[in-house]
Amino acid sequence: MSTLSGACIIAQSGGPTAAINASTYGAIITAMKRREITRVLGARNGIRGVLDDNLVDLDKEEPYELELLKYTPSSALGSCRYKLKDPSEDDSDYRRILDIFVKYGVRYFFYNGGNDSMDTCNKISKYCLEHGYECRVMGIPKTIDNDLVETDHCPGYGSAAKYIATSMMEVYKDTHVYDIGTITVIEVMGRNAGWLAAASSLASLKGCGPDLIYLPEVPFDFDKFLEGADYFYKKNNHCVIVVSEGIRDKDGRYIVEYASSQARQKDSFGHAQMGGLAAYIADAVKNHIGAKVRGIELSLLQRCASHWASHTDIDESFRAGRAAVEYAVEGLTGKMVGFQRVYDQGGNYRCDIKLIDLEKVANKEKHVPIDWINATGDGLNEKFFDYALPLIQGTVNIPIEDGLPRHARLRMVKAMV
Amino acid sequence: MSTLSGACIIAQSGGPTAAINASTYGAIITAMKRREITRVLGARNGIRGVLDDNLVDLDKEEPYELELLKYTPSSALGSCRYKLKDPSEDDSDYRRILDIFVKYGVRYFFYNGGNDSMDTCNKISKYCLEHGYECRVMGIPKTIDNDLVETDHCPGYGSAAKYIATSMMEVYKDTHVYDIGTITVIEVMGRNAGWLAAASSLASLKGCGPDLIYLPEVPFDFDKFLEGADYFYKKNNHCVIVVSEGIRDKDGRYIVEYASSQARQKDSFGHAQMGGLAAYIADAVKNHIGAKVRGIELSLLQRCASHWASHTDIDESFRAGRAAVEYAVEGLTGKMVGFQRVYDQGGNYRCDIKLIDLEKVANKEKHVPIDWINATGDGLNEKFFDYALPLIQGTVNIPIEDGLPRHARLRMVKAMV
Repeated sequence: MSTLSGACIIAQSGGPTAAINASTYGAIITAMKRREITRVLGARNGIRGVLDDNLVDLDKEEPYELELLKYTPSSALGSCRYKLKDPSEDDSDYRRILDIFVKYGVRYFFYNGGNDSMDTCNKISKYCLEHGYECRVMGIPKTIDNDLVETDHCPGYGSAAKYIATSMMEVYKDTHVYDIGTITVIEVMGRNAGWLAAASSLASLKGCGPDLIYLPEVPFDFDKFLEGADYFYKKNNHCVIVVSEGIRDKDGRYIVEYASSQARQKDSFGHAQMGGLAAYIADAVKNHIGAKVRGIELSLLQRCASHWASHTDIDESFRAGRAAVEYAVEGLTGKMVGFQRVYDQGGNYRCDIKLIDLEKVANKEKHVPIDWINATGDGLNEKFFDYALPLIQGTVNIPIEDGLPRHARLRMVKAMV
Repeated sequence: MSTLSGACIIAQSGGPTAAINASTYGAIITAMKRREITRVLGARNGIRGVLDDNLVDLDKEEPYELELLKYTPSSALGSCRYKLKDPSEDDSDYRRILDIFVKYGVRYFFYNGGNDSMDTCNKISKYCLEHGYECRVMGIPKTIDNDLVETDHCPGYGSAAKYIATSMMEVYKDTHVYDIGTITVIEVMGRNAGWLAAASSLASLKGCGPDLIYLPEVPFDFDKFLEGADYFYKKNNHCVIVVSEGIRDKDGRYIVEYASSQARQKDSFGHAQMGGLAAYIADAVKNHIGAKVRGIELSLLQRCASHWASHTDIDESFRAGRAAVEYAVEGLTGKMVGFQRVYDQGGNYRCDIKLIDLEKVANKEKHVPIDWINATGDGLNEKFFDYALPLIQGTVNIPIEDGLPRHARLRMVKAMV
């Protein structure tokens, strides 16, 4: 192990979650405690803050406010969806990043984000290495989508899953209140992975689960779907359906694209923009069955509901941030912090930290295993319940002021050399 | 005071809330304790349960499960939206109700619902009186819309307001995370009253409030609205707009009707069905300003989020149910339980029970006072904050099982004579 002394930059990227600030706080507080790290800088709006020389001195924040990050949703330092070019084609961004690293004496870079961010992280790590600039680069995962490979699960997923399962229970009870039949379609995020939609199935352990759940892992068959909805509606007078935003037909076409003949907008990573699916599916059911139908989109609510975060998730997210700093100080670089699930002899869940090569994570997606999905392809089985339940345990006692959550208020003092 | 001995029926009606079961529990547990009440019956699906002779023996429920009603969303006994005819035109429903009352020896009827339910309650009360059948009829209010007259506020409103304000804070933080500009339109319920939309303004006390709030109390002017959205978008790079589902133009036409040339469906009370407004407004803004726009409908989530209920609301809702039974046993009838706000010498909020003639409440709507709305008609002022803040205080510690809320599981044993 070689000792490396210098400043660190912490940045956040991608879609926010209820737990990303807990990871960032884990990294900040640990960095502040390590004497090898001489200054703790935050980049505003992810890698853009580095490129724009828009850094803040996190050392100048009040300790109490920093601690509140554990209970503060969204990305406190701001986020971005900026994709770095391939350095073999255009290395101007990398040169700029290196300039900033040199300018502030940065020897540690921690990037808190999803698959795309791990790609960014990986490229920066390699570039530094190739140009003989010693900088330890670590990825701290976050994504409600839970779609990062090589890790058992992702920080942020447990809280979103808990919120989705709880909201599912509540909406189920609400929709079953009238003697008039209803069909309810709930749209959940998750891109091309069904982890979030699957979380709604946990409500079935309390007798309030959806009748039908459609994941991107199973090709969506419209006729079979309408048949299923009709069956449950006739049987129970009510039918609750959960659809993942990323469901596709057997030819790989997104169902949401059916809704509109317009070419779907794509974001700067080339991902199709999702949304509006619930209304479309609800309309289809209405036309077919003629029942009273309601489409509900959980929208941003599902990724920022820190008031109902999973304590397990917040704790693990914090530990992920802490581990990134500790391992970097000990000499590691080019890794993402991951989780390893361990059960003790009593069958109790424990989450250990493991390190994963960034190379192995960048731009890949992990899907719900097919054998966790029921035979009819419209629900989850016990394997999923066993997987997901430990992740939603524990309620976070968030500080309250005026009856509302007390989120962190950071000063964001602009860093000078 | 005359002693009246007999069975009671408790029923729930109208749209469910996070607190209606707390009121019903207050009525049930109090009725069980009073020796004048010989049997505690529940009607399934409101007045329909009486008409259909579909009653349950609440005395046969487990005490622990009944207590869990305080933390269980939706209407545990089921609801309905059935409108009784005017008895002077057709009294068949009333004759049927009276038959059932006689059949089970019912001398107390408690109806837990909104304005429409108070109308039902009032008609039953009068009919019994006119036909010389002694039955004490009491209305227990509930509505997230907070639009019942004569009472300071309504059970259910505080919890919905707390959820809306909290979600507003969380969504605000989420939408402000990118350096790319965004406009977010959030649609809130409330029918023709702006109380729920107004609740989003409480988030501004934490620096996370909407830039613009449109209530049904102020005629909606599209040009002024687009100007406002444009102003905040240019100023802050982000703009968050809250719209009440019931906003109307200066001619009284619902804005949501603009969205569709189809005649809007009306429910059995003649109310226009609302919804889909957020998407419509978002589209309008997108076309005008060209920004990245997202519409979010809080939908059913806002009325059933018992996981984030206001402790004050749950407590007051319970007390409303209890008071209805106590006053009825003491001899009163034809009243709705209402709330009177009192401040002690130290300025501390207290809520006292008052009784209101059903006659005065039925089919009326209370609106947000115009002098609580700011001069530009797109936000609330301190008068509203002072009114609403006491109602959202306190967090309910709901029982948890498997990381999820533990709701009541009732046996619902069918009542026999």
